[in-house]
Amino acid sequence: MNLSMIRYVLGLVMMFEGAFLSLPCVVALIYQEKKGFSFFIMMIICLLLGFLLRYKKPKNHVFYAKEGFVTVAASWIVLSFFGGLPFVLNGDIPSVVDAMFETVSGFTTTGSSILSDVEALSKCSLFWRSFTHWIGGMGVFVFVLAVMPLTGGQNIHLMRAESPGPSVGKLVPKLRTTSMILYKIYFVMTVIMVLLLLAGRMPLFESLLLSFGAAGTGGFGILNTGCATYTPYVQYVIAVFMILFGVNFNVYYFLLIRRFKEAIKYEELKYYLLFIGASVTLITVNICRTFPTLEEAFRHAFFQVSSIITTTGYSSFDFNGWPEFSKVILILLMFSGACAGSTGGGIKVSRLVMMLKTVKKELLFYAHPRNVRKVKFNGRVVEHEVIRGMNVYFVAYGFIMMFSVLILALDNFDFTTNFTAVVATLNNIGPGLSAVGPASNFGAYSDLSKIVMIFDMLAGRLEIFPMLVLLSPYTWKGLRLRKRK
Amino acid sequence: MNLSMIRYVLGLVMMFEGAFLSLPCVVALIYQEKKGFSFFIMMIICLLLGFLLRYKKPKNHVFYAKEGFVTVAASWIVLSFFGGLPFVLNGDIPSVVDAMFETVSGFTTTGSSILSDVEALSKCSLFWRSFTHWIGGMGVFVFVLAVMPLTGGQNIHLMRAESPGPSVGKLVPKLRTTSMILYKIYFVMTVIMVLLLLAGRMPLFESLLLSFGAAGTGGFGILNTGCATYTPYVQYVIAVFMILFGVNFNVYYFLLIRRFKEAIKYEELKYYLLFIGASVTLITVNICRTFPTLEEAFRHAFFQVSSIITTTGYSSFDFNGWPEFSKVILILLMFSGACAGSTGGGIKVSRLVMMLKTVKKELLFYAHPRNVRKVKFNGRVVEHEVIRGMNVYFVAYGFIMMFSVLILALDNFDFTTNFTAVVATLNNIGPGLSAVGPASNFGAYSDLSKIVMIFDMLAGRLEIFPMLVLLSPYTWKGLRLRKRK
Repeated sequence: MNLSMIRYVLGLVMMFEGAFLSLPCVVALIYQEKKGFSFFIMMIICLLLGFLLRYKKPKNHVFYAKEGFVTVAASWIVLSFFGGLPFVLNGDIPSVVDAMFETVSGFTTTGSSILSDVEALSKCSLFWRSFTHWIGGMGVFVFVLAVMPLTGGQNIHLMRAESPGPSVGKLVPKLRTTSMILYKIYFVMTVIMVLLLLAGRMPLFESLLLSFGAAGTGGFGILNTGCATYTPYVQYVIAVFMILFGVNFNVYYFLLIRRFKEAIKYEELKYYLLFIGASVTLITVNICRTFPTLEEAFRHAFFQVSSIITTTGYSSFDFNGWPEFSKVILILLMFSGACAGSTGGGIKVSRLVMMLKTVKKELLFYAHPRNVRKVKFNGRVVEHEVIRGMNVYFVAYGFIMMFSVLILALDNFDFTTNFTAVVATLNNIGPGLSAVGPASNFGAYSDLSKIVMIFDMLAGRLEIFPMLVLLSPYTWKGLRLRKRK
Repeated sequence: MNLSMIRYVLGLVMMFEGAFLSLPCVVALIYQEKKGFSFFIMMIICLLLGFLLRYKKPKNHVFYAKEGFVTVAASWIVLSFFGGLPFVLNGDIPSVVDAMFETVSGFTTTGSSILSDVEALSKCSLFWRSFTHWIGGMGVFVFVLAVMPLTGGQNIHLMRAESPGPSVGKLVPKLRTTSMILYKIYFVMTVIMVLLLLAGRMPLFESLLLSFGAAGTGGFGILNTGCATYTPYVQYVIAVFMILFGVNFNVYYFLLIRRFKEAIKYEELKYYLLFIGASVTLITVNICRTFPTLEEAFRHAFFQVSSIITTTGYSSFDFNGWPEFSKVILILLMFSGACAGSTGGGIKVSRLVMMLKTVKKELLFYAHPRNVRKVKFNGRVVEHEVIRGMNVYFVAYGFIMMFSVLILALDNFDFTTNFTAVVATLNNIGPGLSAVGPASNFGAYSDLSKIVMIFDMLAGRLEIFPMLVLLSPYTWKGLRLRKRK
């Protein structure tokens, strides 16, 4: 394990966090909030720490997948820890665990909150909280890579460890150009959304924050009522943009360079839209009697479906009161998640489809044992390694889920609450059902449960293995042995 | 697809069912119940149908895995259908779907019941209901093979399709001898249990039926109170025997032929006992305050854990009122299930352990990429094919579970009820939680939901693929194509 290289990259991440923290300082200046000082202090501390960590350049530039996983996992923990301290310092969230929970929820674009009164927060805290969504959505390292060149072979390992989906799609041969293209698309789409919200007469500050949350598929609201009080126009804009940010960004790249055929034939996109269409239809039919007009039923079904499948977690209606059938559809969408290569979390549509195809392949095999078939996706044969990785991911996912529900049960909330709390945090969604439904929050859980959910959110965002590798004794055993030699 | 061969084997199954049906007739004679006529009529019908199906011998003896899967799945459906009709005829269960549910629940050793008043049943119906557990536990085809020789290569395919666990352990080279050994052990253990219950001053009829349910890890009770009113001695006997019937029968075989070392080093057994020990300890600590003595808390924890992990489903206490932590442990045990090669259902301890080992292997791989390791179980390398099969099983299992919960949600019961109803039927356990808890029954569900759960019970008992192959269009597509030629 190349510890000095990890330290060096961590230093860079700290400096970037320092730079990010300047933004809430600006917000505090504009709104003349004294609470902004806490962000200023942390900005200085992050920059100083970053400078210290980067003072001594590493001699050995070796950087493998293992180092990539450990660095990314450690960076996200460090980012969340230092990103959460301002809330503690300025008193907006006095408890350290709560502040960590909120910041991890922000960076991982989960959107689960421990706050019962969001509107009481200072503007600078509100801004920082939503801004973490925007950075976490596309990825911290993707941002770092887009802004500055790194030496050595670390790039691909860092990006692979941080990017969602079964495999990283390199858009162009050069990784740095890929990150720049991704962030440009991301930035432009966010700006368009802000403009459309402004057109709906929403104030700039609110438009910005809502767009950060939608772009990162995060879901932190700025009103205690979530998105329930917005006009239908605004709700439609948000719903449509959530769906757009859940699409694999490769599709936009292909559209951008006018290779429309390739964009349209993206298999994952078809299933993603199919899932959305089917769910919206079924829920609309299921709930239409409880709404005065069909449009209203459709709008809320559409909003909730797009919010849940993209793992954003905004809500325009408290679906806790909907019939079980609609609620189960939403729970299933929580598992599905959005497309790989988007800012959304969850298992990802492509993984689900590929898994279904392995079952289909097995049934074909039984029917015609001599016809050996391979699983295809997007017209290409899926390599054995990808399927193996997917299966191991799925197994680890299942075990983490079970273990988490068990620990949460110690707090003695009902099963639906515990189960959906874990599903909502592990898939980076936000609200669950029952006592953690859209009209409630996660504040009532014990610190132990919150720490478990912090782990789940990080494991979910980083697709489990970076966190497991960081905590695995095997990763560190070799290190001690080598040092003893 | 060799349809005539499938017909021929189905005929044999029908004749065996006819023979089995003679037993409740005997019970009816002893207790002088007129309701016994329904069993007599069905016995005649089954024997006649069996005779007709076997009238024309098939010319082609080709019998592959595909035929094995289809035959086993079809046999279990036919067995349950004709086995359920007597209940309809004699009025003990008037609805056909309910009778099917109850009989499938019997043969698959699930033990979920739609009856609210078990004690109102006639003795012959009670006997038949519990006897289906005993036959279903070790398997119908294992019984057929043990009793009579079959020609051709069908044996291994039939047995493989019906036996629980990732792979069939051949005890001795000859399959028929294996089945005979298995049934001898099974029979002797059942007799010992009956004797021990008789020693506890339980009447013979009750001892027999309780032992059938424990041996097959079924769980149909004969009292409306389940096992709650039995003496501590009887409860301990039942609990211990449930655990014994959840052990891989290979272990007993090794003990029988005095190869103690091989019996003891069975890896699955260690984990099985570890799961039981850990769960009993945690639950005892969690519930001890609600019981007058520690012994009582321990006894109920021990009884419930052994009942759930072996997927039997007897209950000595309504655990629906226990703290969430204990309930979640029980839910997790529902997934785990017993050992492969036992009469228990569920995912099986060996599958879980092997899956955990694939995660461990992945973490080791990241730590030391050049050290390629293989997953080992019982000291042997697990073949790639076994892992692949296991993964596909796991994926299919997940999808069936999700889809089932969705359909059940249409009845608008709460999530805990629907979720645990599916878990309890798919893993062949019996009771779930909330409205399908140990003190309640499955009668309130709609016919559609019952049919879904009938499918789940069959899919769970036959480890999913026989049912999927039977229903898969690929299985039948080739047939039509070949006929057109």
